[in-house]
Amino acid sequence: MDKYVIGLDYGSDSARAVLVNAMNGKTLATAVRYYPRWKEGKYCNPTINQYRQHPKDYIEVLEATVREVLGAVSSEVAENVVGIAFDTTGSTPCFIDEEGTPLALKEGFEENPNAMFVLWKDHTAIKEADEINALCRRWEIDYSAYEGGIYSSEWLWAKALHVLRTDEKVREAAYSIVEHCEWMPAILTGTTKPSEIVRSRCAEGHKAMWHAKWGGLPSEEFLTTLDPLLTGLRGRMFTETETAEKVVGHLTEEWAKRLGLSTDVVVAGGAFDCHMGAVGAGIKADSWVRIIGTSTCDIVVAKPETVGNKLIPGICGQVDGSVVPGLIGFEAGQSAFGDIYAWFRRVLEFPMKAILGDKLTIEELDKACDKILPALTAEAEKIAIGESGVIAVDWMNGRRTPDADQTLKGAIAGITLGTTAPMIFRALVEATAFGSKAIMERMKSEGIRINDCIGIGGIALKSPFVMQVMSDVLGVPISVCESDQACALGASIFAAVAAGLYPTIEKAQEAMASGCAKEYKPSAENHAKYEELYKEYKRLGAYCESK
Amino acid sequence: MDKYVIGLDYGSDSARAVLVNAMNGKTLATAVRYYPRWKEGKYCNPTINQYRQHPKDYIEVLEATVREVLGAVSSEVAENVVGIAFDTTGSTPCFIDEEGTPLALKEGFEENPNAMFVLWKDHTAIKEADEINALCRRWEIDYSAYEGGIYSSEWLWAKALHVLRTDEKVREAAYSIVEHCEWMPAILTGTTKPSEIVRSRCAEGHKAMWHAKWGGLPSEEFLTTLDPLLTGLRGRMFTETETAEKVVGHLTEEWAKRLGLSTDVVVAGGAFDCHMGAVGAGIKADSWVRIIGTSTCDIVVAKPETVGNKLIPGICGQVDGSVVPGLIGFEAGQSAFGDIYAWFRRVLEFPMKAILGDKLTIEELDKACDKILPALTAEAEKIAIGESGVIAVDWMNGRRTPDADQTLKGAIAGITLGTTAPMIFRALVEATAFGSKAIMERMKSEGIRINDCIGIGGIALKSPFVMQVMSDVLGVPISVCESDQACALGASIFAAVAAGLYPTIEKAQEAMASGCAKEYKPSAENHAKYEELYKEYKRLGAYCESK
Repeated sequence: MDKYVIGLDYGSDSARAVLVNAMNGKTLATAVRYYPRWKEGKYCNPTINQYRQHPKDYIEVLEATVREVLGAVSSEVAENVVGIAFDTTGSTPCFIDEEGTPLALKEGFEENPNAMFVLWKDHTAIKEADEINALCRRWEIDYSAYEGGIYSSEWLWAKALHVLRTDEKVREAAYSIVEHCEWMPAILTGTTKPSEIVRSRCAEGHKAMWHAKWGGLPSEEFLTTLDPLLTGLRGRMFTETETAEKVVGHLTEEWAKRLGLSTDVVVAGGAFDCHMGAVGAGIKADSWVRIIGTSTCDIVVAKPETVGNKLIPGICGQVDGSVVPGLIGFEAGQSAFGDIYAWFRRVLEFPMKAILGDKLTIEELDKACDKILPALTAEAEKIAIGESGVIAVDWMNGRRTPDADQTLKGAIAGITLGTTAPMIFRALVEATAFGSKAIMERMKSEGIRINDCIGIGGIALKSPFVMQVMSDVLGVPISVCESDQACALGASIFAAVAAGLYPTIEKAQEAMASGCAKEYKPSAENHAKYEELYKEYKRLGAYCESK
Repeated sequence: MDKYVIGLDYGSDSARAVLVNAMNGKTLATAVRYYPRWKEGKYCNPTINQYRQHPKDYIEVLEATVREVLGAVSSEVAENVVGIAFDTTGSTPCFIDEEGTPLALKEGFEENPNAMFVLWKDHTAIKEADEINALCRRWEIDYSAYEGGIYSSEWLWAKALHVLRTDEKVREAAYSIVEHCEWMPAILTGTTKPSEIVRSRCAEGHKAMWHAKWGGLPSEEFLTTLDPLLTGLRGRMFTETETAEKVVGHLTEEWAKRLGLSTDVVVAGGAFDCHMGAVGAGIKADSWVRIIGTSTCDIVVAKPETVGNKLIPGICGQVDGSVVPGLIGFEAGQSAFGDIYAWFRRVLEFPMKAILGDKLTIEELDKACDKILPALTAEAEKIAIGESGVIAVDWMNGRRTPDADQTLKGAIAGITLGTTAPMIFRALVEATAFGSKAIMERMKSEGIRINDCIGIGGIALKSPFVMQVMSDVLGVPISVCESDQACALGASIFAAVAAGLYPTIEKAQEAMASGCAKEYKPSAENHAKYEELYKEYKRLGAYCESK
């Protein structure tokens, strides 16, 4: 009888469970649920970029999705599920009490956003991130060194400090803090006590300045210098972290019952979605996996001997085992990718929505608006490289890497009276590809090898124009991952290793990782033309960076 | 009995005749005709910016419009018409034979664009303009000095040389060359012979490097060094020019009959539309008149003692008497103004036209598209100055002044994912106002006084939002000229002076010039905010200028 595993992928808006045959990686069932409170817009305030998620949302979708995938397969299959693993967004931390209960699950905190998980894209802690960066610059140890040298407001310490400063009630009730990807395995295995929680190498290494070199988290002195409000928190957190294929435990009786599984089921450690997605897409040493959606998350892994003591500046960190145990995982990303195309679509929607409301129904208008990007693409494809003279820079949502700067903005230049909407769209597509090239150039100039590139996500699967431009700009072939659930598939690979079905992630990948749906090959001629345009991109970028 | 005059205004697409009471400037009748061959798109090639107009177009609309205005008034009024004057676009030159006949009116040349008038906006002579500029830089006399120091492809010598180089047949048949504004009075008075044509101070001073200081046109040596093809042409042209209030002659019998007027009618000299428009709008020393349409033409006049020997660099010239006899006329302009708003409208039209063709008729779509700019304006007005962070540069059609450079392009920066279409539109409106400010700053920094500003044209009359932004940016009150035919009214003022009804243009203006429809006053608070944004405009402009 084959063995099966369940991979759970917690995204920004919804969670997915996949039930996978661990022998061959074939997905037998998939279930998706939106977070109910989040969907109502609760606990968020977009004008100040406050994004919080209630732990109840996470629990409710867990039960619903796992029960759904189990209900979709035979009882024989369901009985042969042997492992479960989670990936989540991150850094998405939440304060917990001494028992490890997220404060929002306690009386008096049920509706308090500061007692909830602070979603990765919450930007309320910009001031705190600035302070952390300033302190890192003058401290004897630069604790941000393995996180690219720039600490972000999206990460654990900035968020923790911001909440402690903001909310006295939470400050008094907070004992320790947990990442979403750590909390999920902990509740299923009954290991939620702060001293018992298995800590994620991926989450803590990339976002909490944890590193073996300095014995774990930044020193108590560093943290209390940052703010005395942090006094003692470090001691109630942890010193060790684990890679995600390690066993966290087995399902508790209660959770086995709630999910419809056996207490023999092994629960693996958690990690971030993109990291597990890279594993699901088949990442190996010197591969570059790009999760391409509204923004991008870029993952590269390399053998430790290739990297040596080198620190790559201006990326989102380099952590031993954050992706594949034994390899150094590098994280980078573009702050906006598909979001830029969606922005231009919104600009072009203006006349339709402002003027045609009396002629067309809302449904007709929505349908028409859905055709804008395909119509732009059809025309933009006909324009030769460099023909329009239009050049754009893709920092409409700031810049994540290389060299994070959230204050940067986008620009469009080379505009004439003959410039058309498709010309601008083409320039925006090229700009997102140039942003990708800037990441690749940083990696390469620091000696990181990139032998191949794999694209995951909706844009990779559905936008041949964007992918071909990207391949031509990078001068690198790009394989598109066949699975549209690469992250959940990646989680199932970790579950399979934790359950003892494979000795290593690499072996499990050989059997289970996704195939390739399509390969885009760069044209040497186009690449040469784009090399010229890239100089113009950098020139316009230099203007955008100047004050 | 009152006396009457007819002013004829030849624009880019159509001509207008106004029949004006010379006692009070009141318009009794107006007639407009589109150039018939031009309207069919004949003799033009927009892809290479070739724009040519057939002399028959000019003659046909002359008869039609004059007959129409005469038909609209009583015979008593018609019999008391005493003067007629013309303004036209320019530089709009045409090669003529020994009799002064435009070559296109001769057998074998009827359909040859090179035998026609080369419209001001024809850009086929860019190479020739470059050569003229290069030669001016190394010649002992810089003949471009009174034309702002940069000779344009839109001007007489560049166009003449380009046609001579391009067309052997024209080269052989060409005896001399005439500007459109000179040819109209010449045909009506039977003075078309090259030696008899009264030459326009305005046209030749601003566009043909004519200046009293060097005895007229550039030297034969200069011109033959530029190209031996020009050998002898100068000698067949002229040495003297006249201001436009001078009498050219009386109507010939033939033309008196064709138009339905008496041979007593006096014909004044011609000048360019914007120059006469400034007179119609009531320009006086230290006034700035702006003709604001698709582009702008800016006219400033100053007393010679204010200017002294000063040469203002980077404008379109300074000519004694080109606007008002006895005053120095300065010309400047923005290459695109309303054209930039029309460009953004076209960009926003894309989805409507590409997607909704099956839902709406062409008429419905056109009607909807006509609402785009009003809808943008309504939203843009609500945005506070500097709030959006979006900044634009207005060089989408190159830059005319200050410091002509047709290779420049426009740009939009400060874009975020929250940037909306109205924010971009507001930035474009601000950019056109900043372009205006750059012209004013150049004038002022060179010691030219600007006491008041008068706006003429469709945008001045119809766009309060644009005019208020302009007033706030400039920090100057702007009166809007009441007449929507200021150029034709200006021509009628010249006709009245030529006919002896007034001793000077100033006296005629007092009685006849247009009143003010509205005044926009700058807000000191807004002006201060725009001063900050103007720095950003200049910073983005510096990027656009860099290569």
